[in-house]
Amino acid sequence: MTKIVIDGLGADQGPKMVAQGLALAMKKNPGFQAVLIGPRDDFSPFLRDYGDRIEWIDCDQAISNEESPVMAIRRKKDSSMVLAFNRLNAEDAHVLLSAGSTGALLAGATFITKRLKGVKRCCLAAILPNVTGKDIILADAGANMDTTPEMLVQFAVLASAFAKTVLGIKQPRIGSLSVGVEDHKGDDRVLKTADLLRKTDLLYIGNVEARDLFHMDCDVLVCDGFSGNVAVKTAEGTAATLLGLIKEAIMESGGTKLGGLLLKKALKKKLSVLDYTRHGGAPLLGSRKPVFKAHGNVGPETFARSIQEALDYADAQAEGKLEDELSTVMAQINGGPEIERDHE
Amino acid sequence: MTKIVIDGLGADQGPKMVAQGLALAMKKNPGFQAVLIGPRDDFSPFLRDYGDRIEWIDCDQAISNEESPVMAIRRKKDSSMVLAFNRLNAEDAHVLLSAGSTGALLAGATFITKRLKGVKRCCLAAILPNVTGKDIILADAGANMDTTPEMLVQFAVLASAFAKTVLGIKQPRIGSLSVGVEDHKGDDRVLKTADLLRKTDLLYIGNVEARDLFHMDCDVLVCDGFSGNVAVKTAEGTAATLLGLIKEAIMESGGTKLGGLLLKKALKKKLSVLDYTRHGGAPLLGSRKPVFKAHGNVGPETFARSIQEALDYADAQAEGKLEDELSTVMAQINGGPEIERDHE
Repeated sequence: MTKIVIDGLGADQGPKMVAQGLALAMKKNPGFQAVLIGPRDDFSPFLRDYGDRIEWIDCDQAISNEESPVMAIRRKKDSSMVLAFNRLNAEDAHVLLSAGSTGALLAGATFITKRLKGVKRCCLAAILPNVTGKDIILADAGANMDTTPEMLVQFAVLASAFAKTVLGIKQPRIGSLSVGVEDHKGDDRVLKTADLLRKTDLLYIGNVEARDLFHMDCDVLVCDGFSGNVAVKTAEGTAATLLGLIKEAIMESGGTKLGGLLLKKALKKKLSVLDYTRHGGAPLLGSRKPVFKAHGNVGPETFARSIQEALDYADAQAEGKLEDELSTVMAQINGGPEIERDHE
Repeated sequence: MTKIVIDGLGADQGPKMVAQGLALAMKKNPGFQAVLIGPRDDFSPFLRDYGDRIEWIDCDQAISNEESPVMAIRRKKDSSMVLAFNRLNAEDAHVLLSAGSTGALLAGATFITKRLKGVKRCCLAAILPNVTGKDIILADAGANMDTTPEMLVQFAVLASAFAKTVLGIKQPRIGSLSVGVEDHKGDDRVLKTADLLRKTDLLYIGNVEARDLFHMDCDVLVCDGFSGNVAVKTAEGTAATLLGLIKEAIMESGGTKLGGLLLKKALKKKLSVLDYTRHGGAPLLGSRKPVFKAHGNVGPETFARSIQEALDYADAQAEGKLEDELSTVMAQINGGPEIERDHE
């Protein structure tokens, strides 16, 4: 039976939301067990029916978004996230889920769980919605700054393996986030990454513009974490701003309120294709054992979804195959077997 | 009398739109003259009333977005853009306006008009709308890839001078586009730029998140052209996608159409604060003489606005002061007078 380790601190809505989400997930899917780390007294009222499926680790120390991630992981040995990574390292645990600091999750995956053989950096693979209804994986969505072209090729391999094994996409189409679709457009990193990707067996389709983020015809979009994060947050901010203005327009008068009422159902349905909480979170790819980041600012339903997605990710058991795929692709771009330079 | 040199090719809507825009601008403002470069026969039917204010340079060779900008500027000596830059170099011309390739404009400003003393790179300063109604200058919006922290400090100086002299902002607040508001968040370039900006007299307020693009409390947002371009295009794409879905929802049935009708006026008014064509274009900062980029895909009204903005930019005559300001700031970040390394 799959066992998920849940870091119960770090969600914006607090431990109550986490407990309610876990209860929902357990009700829907009787086939998993959980290790729940956090303030037991806050959790337990919501989980009375599932006591026999839960292992409790009482803890009240959180890692915040304001701390230096690497320092926090190294020093706060009793924090819920460090306890979660330690528990994940035991043989009977299969996947770790946290709504906490992305940077700390990356540091924990790197220093406690460790990376798969050959992986230079773990990456955060955000699953973006698309008007066509399909999923697009953006890797990296903000976990890594100052990446090299080689790292970006690895993100393409990792994300494309996730697309195959978990999302069921047969041959993922890979694009580069850039400033124009023409081959000569991009910064040095994008141009060098394209040269490398063309040497591999991956299905590389070239540059994709940020303008087409919700329309694009590819499955994996590769980019440095800085620009990936800018793209995701600009999209979030623009959507929130627009929807806010629309709400203000609706509230303006009796007539506009009626207009809003008449449109409400159709609008909700149409806009649902862009709802990023359709997925509960994003996998952190490249660690020896699956690590999943839940959205930080959501309700119990979305958190329950992130639990199920983390379980699916664990059940796909892609790690073994991944090391082989990585080594093949690294040989293709280096013209020979990969020499491990900075892997610890 | 201010004389504007207009590259009449390069706008998506063709020369007719350019001529109509110029006619509108000339009707509104009798106080300027123009040099119009492009197919005279296509222009003249729309400009019969203003013949004595226009100098014609007949030309039918354009530089496209698909060409390598530097090669195009160096080789296509008879293109409308190269002719425009050559004409700008004459003493009686004050500003150049073009809706053509941004890259080629940058190359022309750099190699034909040349940069101001001390300027390492010219930058494109997009003027973004904001829900508060104020203008935010994003520099660089996509003209420069692979910038150094020193270049970003210069962008801050150039954009902040433009904000003062043309937009009338007394002491522009400068932020860095980054992946979080905390000081330790960002890539190497952002962190090093922040260190340098803190040494200057500029009013530096720290990191700004892309999520707050339309809400932020600063006047100038400094970034590398790659991420600046990703932010601008993501915002455009997200807005276009959302508005498209809303239109589809409105068209769904008789009831939703009525709803749309009731909302139309209030919605239009509310959303107008985010209309990027409120400004006709964006200045290219750092060249010896003013160069202004008009939006490529607009109608005559917006193009007329870009003509007026280019004239305002020319009339501000900020170039002289700018060289002094730049040299002061470069001395502040280098701890001594600026040594010109890569300025030609």
